[in-house]
Amino acid sequence: MATIKPSLAKGTRDFSPLEMEKRNYIFDTLKSVFKKFGYNEIQTPSFENLSTLTGKYGEEGDRLIFKILNSGDYLAKAPTDLLEQKSAHKLISHISEKALRYDLTVPFARYVVMHQHALALPFKRFQIQPVWRADRPQRGRYREFYQCDVDVVGSPSLLNEAEFMLIYHEAFLALGLTDFTIKLNNRKILSGIAEVIGKPALIVDMTVAIDKLDKIGLDGVNKELLERGFTVDDLALLKPIILLGGSNAEKLTSLKEILRSSPQGQEGIAELEEVFAYLDAFGAANVIEKHVEVDITLARGLNYYTGCIFEVKTNEVAMGSIGGGGRYDDLTGMFGGKELTGVGVSFGADRIYDVLEELNRFPSSSATTTQLLLVNFDKSIEPFTLRLLADLRAVGIAAELYPAALKLKKQMGYADEKKIPYVLLVGEEEMTSGNLSLKDMRTGEQSKVRREELLNMLQKEVG
Amino acid sequence: MATIKPSLAKGTRDFSPLEMEKRNYIFDTLKSVFKKFGYNEIQTPSFENLSTLTGKYGEEGDRLIFKILNSGDYLAKAPTDLLEQKSAHKLISHISEKALRYDLTVPFARYVVMHQHALALPFKRFQIQPVWRADRPQRGRYREFYQCDVDVVGSPSLLNEAEFMLIYHEAFLALGLTDFTIKLNNRKILSGIAEVIGKPALIVDMTVAIDKLDKIGLDGVNKELLERGFTVDDLALLKPIILLGGSNAEKLTSLKEILRSSPQGQEGIAELEEVFAYLDAFGAANVIEKHVEVDITLARGLNYYTGCIFEVKTNEVAMGSIGGGGRYDDLTGMFGGKELTGVGVSFGADRIYDVLEELNRFPSSSATTTQLLLVNFDKSIEPFTLRLLADLRAVGIAAELYPAALKLKKQMGYADEKKIPYVLLVGEEEMTSGNLSLKDMRTGEQSKVRREELLNMLQKEVG
Repeated sequence: MATIKPSLAKGTRDFSPLEMEKRNYIFDTLKSVFKKFGYNEIQTPSFENLSTLTGKYGEEGDRLIFKILNSGDYLAKAPTDLLEQKSAHKLISHISEKALRYDLTVPFARYVVMHQHALALPFKRFQIQPVWRADRPQRGRYREFYQCDVDVVGSPSLLNEAEFMLIYHEAFLALGLTDFTIKLNNRKILSGIAEVIGKPALIVDMTVAIDKLDKIGLDGVNKELLERGFTVDDLALLKPIILLGGSNAEKLTSLKEILRSSPQGQEGIAELEEVFAYLDAFGAANVIEKHVEVDITLARGLNYYTGCIFEVKTNEVAMGSIGGGGRYDDLTGMFGGKELTGVGVSFGADRIYDVLEELNRFPSSSATTTQLLLVNFDKSIEPFTLRLLADLRAVGIAAELYPAALKLKKQMGYADEKKIPYVLLVGEEEMTSGNLSLKDMRTGEQSKVRREELLNMLQKEVG
Repeated sequence: MATIKPSLAKGTRDFSPLEMEKRNYIFDTLKSVFKKFGYNEIQTPSFENLSTLTGKYGEEGDRLIFKILNSGDYLAKAPTDLLEQKSAHKLISHISEKALRYDLTVPFARYVVMHQHALALPFKRFQIQPVWRADRPQRGRYREFYQCDVDVVGSPSLLNEAEFMLIYHEAFLALGLTDFTIKLNNRKILSGIAEVIGKPALIVDMTVAIDKLDKIGLDGVNKELLERGFTVDDLALLKPIILLGGSNAEKLTSLKEILRSSPQGQEGIAELEEVFAYLDAFGAANVIEKHVEVDITLARGLNYYTGCIFEVKTNEVAMGSIGGGGRYDDLTGMFGGKELTGVGVSFGADRIYDVLEELNRFPSSSATTTQLLLVNFDKSIEPFTLRLLADLRAVGIAAELYPAALKLKKQMGYADEKKIPYVLLVGEEEMTSGNLSLKDMRTGEQSKVRREELLNMLQKEVG
């Protein structure tokens, strides 16, 4: 077998122990919040039938789906003319019938349709799994990355929307983020706006333009609106809407007036008011005040969402959105399932990771790694250290004996590398006297402890 | 978009909430044991460069690796003659440069070589990730399944072998299994046996035959040995070895005598003795007595292992091995890394799942799902129930309000389906009197509780 210098496939990553610990911290924190709100985990397979995925993500999406080559003699049934013409695109369906998951939404829809007779509705699920996209890799964009979705299907109640805002609030606080904004909009308000200015067909053009307000300012938005078929009169009507200011309540009051001729717009406003009423009933007025902002320029996933739309951004570092979601009226129609309304949000795990890293908000790693390294001085001391090791583990303390009597420096380096907080040095003298030398690797302090003291102290730290 | 009846790709599975809970129970239990012994988690990407995987698993393995079709115009650089001749096999390397992980060992070897300058040796890692094989699916055999590996590289000490036996012991006990056997052998003993009967070149034939003792009996083994080139005289020499009985100590004593002319055989015996000495020093005599069995017919992965060999089977249900592993002397040579000795074991998660299911040993699910469902009688009661819901969650209790005031039967069915242990019925009267009706779904009992009592009781249960 030829020896080759190994490398990672383009756009993929290894996760080292320290990275895994941080990633698990994020996922575990999110999971415990999801569960508290009654969401349960499911998983779907990494690959699906190609026909399940094709046509669900647009032409560009189809292109970015990783296809799996059929096994065995995969060319046997391939049309000769396609091979001769090198028709790569047309040949795909003949040589590939499986593809890697592109997102968690389509597999979830398939899951719901396939299990619909067994599901207790509303069905509340979360799913944290990798997805794969044949994108050109670049900084922060990978070909394999995790998505983290929470959705409920089969319940039209706006209680769900309110709870997703509480989930966002609790999850980000639990992760140590304090200054973040949950932006809230409603597709029906956007439709209402397009309606009252008399351009309902241009809703997508309108939202694409006003979505850029932050980046290009009002003049830029106006320029783009004109290019996209709006008139100067339209701009005059839109201006107060785009620049809508004040508190959430003030914004809704203004919108009610602006959209008075649009039943759909009024419905959208009423929905937001109901979400606020739910948050109020939860006693979460502080959440609304500190973290929720009605933002009618928010137009995330417009072709998809039919009701409330959410997006979360942190105000502590410059970063795109760290979460988003909304209400969609027909998740399962693509698979011929009965129409089921759904609402859900997702968390941008990679971005959250980067934010926590930049703000240095990850908890000290010592809680989840080895607590104590027993230095190995000599085989003759092993009977003592191995019994101690067994006793430490018996009370739940993660501990190791360095497996060879190498130089002390080497063993200390090992503890250092693994971020092990305590090192115990037991030589002949310590074994005889019972006064063990304990070094705190974080402070460098060294002290003498008795066996029982050590067990008690570490048990308290872990506990 | 055409509506198609969705199905799973052949050989793959969805995992429902209940299945996920059980799977996570197994993985979480294993992880906490691994961590206690100083092992840390890593993850590698789902796909690797095809060249990283090819040639590592034999011809049959190469065939079973799932290849990923290159993106874009993947036929552009494909040789025309291969297309015209429909040379599926030869074409692969021209249209596919990536492949799905086939096991966790080769990616781990790649990881170690790529990160060798940053790794503190010994490097102790565990890895729990899916692998994919283009096998024909059948009962219990899937195209996507999880492997669960724990390995240490860079340490020749037999302390590691002893600790793996402790890991097995602690992990299976923690999973509620009580009657299991950890079989122990050593490649050097097998070599020694082949040596003393004067057929060192036939070691593989010998071990393949005697490995079948359980299934085909001594006569069957002898018949196969004769077919594989052994003589009647050889059989006479082998018989006492194959039928070796008694305690572990007695077996080792006999082997010492039998293998007295083989230095390699003596080395293998000495290694087992050292493993036992370590277990003894750990105070684990009970483990040895109850769960460890020297078994010289054990020949798992002979082409791979160079020292100790392990296999675990449960004695409670009929099932193949639920774990196995051993010492290998050169993990990283395939990638040109410096030679590193390693030893590791794996856990058969799917089989362990089936064993626990069959023995009904999974813990009650109620601990990890919603604890309490608040029945929704009427919107007018929501202000009361939502505050209660917020208070329940604030003290860590997973709780839900059914999101619509549907018929009671429907709501109770939801609780039942989700295995929610408690349902709280709050109507107008209960809200006014403060005497809430609590139903224990497991016993069917209904009782009156005050708000504070409820919080205290559930907090204790979760605690």
